[in-house]
Amino acid sequence: MLTPADADFLNRLPQAVLRAVRPADVEEPRGRWTGQGAAVACPRNAAEVAEVIRACAAARVGVVPLGGGTGLVGGQVMTEGPMPLLLSLERMRAIRAVYPEENVLVAEAGCTLAEVQAAAAQAGRLFPLHIASQGTARIGGVLSTNAGGVNVLRYGNARDLCLGVEAVLADGSVLQGLKRLRKDNTGYDLRNLLIGAEGSLGILTAASLKLFPQPGAEGAAFLVVPGPDAALHLLALTQSLFPGMVSAFELIHRQGLDFLSETMPEVRQPFAPAPGWMVLVELGLPAGMDPAAALADLAVAAGDLVTDGVIAQSDSQRAGFWALREAIPAANRRIGAVSSHDISLPLSEIPGFLSEAGPALAQIDRFRINCFGHLGDGNLHYNVFPCPGHSRQDHEHQREAVKRCIHDLVHARGGSVSAEHGVGRLKVGDLERYGDPAKLAAMRAIKTALDPQGILNPGAVLRA
Amino acid sequence: MLTPADADFLNRLPQAVLRAVRPADVEEPRGRWTGQGAAVACPRNAAEVAEVIRACAAARVGVVPLGGGTGLVGGQVMTEGPMPLLLSLERMRAIRAVYPEENVLVAEAGCTLAEVQAAAAQAGRLFPLHIASQGTARIGGVLSTNAGGVNVLRYGNARDLCLGVEAVLADGSVLQGLKRLRKDNTGYDLRNLLIGAEGSLGILTAASLKLFPQPGAEGAAFLVVPGPDAALHLLALTQSLFPGMVSAFELIHRQGLDFLSETMPEVRQPFAPAPGWMVLVELGLPAGMDPAAALADLAVAAGDLVTDGVIAQSDSQRAGFWALREAIPAANRRIGAVSSHDISLPLSEIPGFLSEAGPALAQIDRFRINCFGHLGDGNLHYNVFPCPGHSRQDHEHQREAVKRCIHDLVHARGGSVSAEHGVGRLKVGDLERYGDPAKLAAMRAIKTALDPQGILNPGAVLRA
Repeated sequence: MLTPADADFLNRLPQAVLRAVRPADVEEPRGRWTGQGAAVACPRNAAEVAEVIRACAAARVGVVPLGGGTGLVGGQVMTEGPMPLLLSLERMRAIRAVYPEENVLVAEAGCTLAEVQAAAAQAGRLFPLHIASQGTARIGGVLSTNAGGVNVLRYGNARDLCLGVEAVLADGSVLQGLKRLRKDNTGYDLRNLLIGAEGSLGILTAASLKLFPQPGAEGAAFLVVPGPDAALHLLALTQSLFPGMVSAFELIHRQGLDFLSETMPEVRQPFAPAPGWMVLVELGLPAGMDPAAALADLAVAAGDLVTDGVIAQSDSQRAGFWALREAIPAANRRIGAVSSHDISLPLSEIPGFLSEAGPALAQIDRFRINCFGHLGDGNLHYNVFPCPGHSRQDHEHQREAVKRCIHDLVHARGGSVSAEHGVGRLKVGDLERYGDPAKLAAMRAIKTALDPQGILNPGAVLRA
Repeated sequence: MLTPADADFLNRLPQAVLRAVRPADVEEPRGRWTGQGAAVACPRNAAEVAEVIRACAAARVGVVPLGGGTGLVGGQVMTEGPMPLLLSLERMRAIRAVYPEENVLVAEAGCTLAEVQAAAAQAGRLFPLHIASQGTARIGGVLSTNAGGVNVLRYGNARDLCLGVEAVLADGSVLQGLKRLRKDNTGYDLRNLLIGAEGSLGILTAASLKLFPQPGAEGAAFLVVPGPDAALHLLALTQSLFPGMVSAFELIHRQGLDFLSETMPEVRQPFAPAPGWMVLVELGLPAGMDPAAALADLAVAAGDLVTDGVIAQSDSQRAGFWALREAIPAANRRIGAVSSHDISLPLSEIPGFLSEAGPALAQIDRFRINCFGHLGDGNLHYNVFPCPGHSRQDHEHQREAVKRCIHDLVHARGGSVSAEHGVGRLKVGDLERYGDPAKLAAMRAIKTALDPQGILNPGAVLRA
């Protein structure tokens, strides 16, 4: 059993690292709930993190790690249980080293993703992870949640971009794993165990990250497709024609464009009337190749798979395409979803899922569905909205049924109910419902082995 | 404490899955030592594997998993301790499914790597892992040892090529993790924990694997470089000019070419006299690009970094280049190494390591050194040979000192003493010596949590 972080406990911590809790430390980013914390420890290095953790272990006090606070599943917000200590990585913000010729960068956990991208760019390199919250999200949280985003298709998710980690374990020991090696087969893969564990197995304090050469020439196009099935064929064709050079392949449904028209009319749209389905394709090509010509070749080779298209003729036009794509989540928020789903499916199951999900939801009530996302990764944001004249509050009582309906269909087709956002506290029940029993049992055994008192992010990923 | 697999125990196993032990089951592939085993269980599916494991758990009998038996660190050969049962995946050889449009293939653990490559090719796809032993090595072992090879630079190692695994855990439960998803953040990363665990945490029975489009056009060149430092600059230049398209970048030292002349004069060599250092570069380009022209452009752009070169003008010439590269290990075996080292280093540490390793070894005795390998991954095979007129037996008493000398230098520079071969039983002491104490403690805690009786591959990776 954990004990609350009381005044006595706080007095035993090094006072120089403590600060008071601010509202932003305990608020879910969409304002849906509020957590608790006795104080915020802000250590400056791994040794100080270890000191804090040892104090928590000695007193059996739970500790909730804080990054940028942008997580969407409540991994950073503990609403119940004995009062925890919050541990923010905000003062561990150094880019420790950049090795351009190795394509490696070593960053502390408190660096924002945007800071890491900037440090890479300054060295003439690319750190390719891109998510909407990159200006706020910190590398420790990005890795702890194995963040995804739009470039996973080409470069992989956060896990794939990490060569090594420094981390503090539940006993206060420091895992010195900041290797800069592409190959290292010395023992179990603790790096990947800590990545995606959402702070429940250890506190990431720094990471060595993979960089890439910047593409010589980049281009983007909106291509209108007859439907999701055609979009998948177009994806395969694009990858065959440009192997290893497809940086993004995003699916956009007409509903998202209509929401944009409704809530953000200032965003310029490429087609009128808005098409039923379109994709945003981005290519990163070697210097000397002409991306606009390559995309035009693709549209021709696609035949019936593409019925209309616009190819960016400049970098600023390309930026405009992405601004439209990235405005869709903002428009969604203005409409207010009944329920949002971060799902992934085997690619070939996507058309079948889409054709059955709409009718299944219609059994519950009338909704508007905005399905968009990273088709290249099989990762869809399948979001359910009220019809005009109704609000999300009107459907409050149906939210669980909507979620269950979608998640059941996804699970039946071998998909995941958390593709890139993680489990946090919001999806602990989903993990228990849909997770493989052998996997869950092994996860619990590992949690108990590495954190026997359960002090690390209590209740995240696994029930406390 | 484990108990030996005696006649009573064997009688309790399903007799249909048992066969007698053959010499190849217990021999180290270089013939250096011989292991033990009471019998070989050859289950036909995961349920039968689970039945065998449950019997072993009930009787506390150790079980050594067998793939193709090509591992070079003794992970498949148990020479001491209570007599184990051997468990071969040889009858689990089905390609369960191929999904060309998803770029996914599901293979059972007993498939050889070559069979997986062939199934991918038949579907018009590429499974890009290439190692010398691919005709014999089985997918279960390839994943359990996280095998590497020549294409890691572009496509990653075995870990990076696996989307999901089916595995039997120490309690006989079956982990149903054959997902075909590119993104799945539902819980701890057990897949990567099992991959590279060398059968000590679970028995892999099947895997879903990533496929890739076949490159449209491939080309290769031998380029002579002034030294390793120039080779590293050339690597960075090549990756900048052809981002994501450099399939291999192999370093070759003159000593390897001299060994070829000495032991395999039939292998045609590109330069006479043999250069001090050269690299074998392979590009995989989109259809329509001319690989020979691209390589010629590279040689021009390289300036002083390249002093001579030969570009393959046909696929058969390219195959000849690779035949030379792949003959080097065979030539090495004919000479007979005093000690071989599968090391990796941060790229920028390689020139410094090479300039100090030779003089350090010369303090022990006079040797010939053949350093070659996957420069793009920082992975070198740094092999030490007797001088003419001497044999490896003459240096028997120095082997430990040679190994220690190299491994100490590698460790001091942040490198790995097992880049792609694993720990097995041969390098358990190295892992204890060079491994991070926090990592080792966590590994032992995980081993105890998942295999409390220690029945899975006893003595591999961690001391029994």
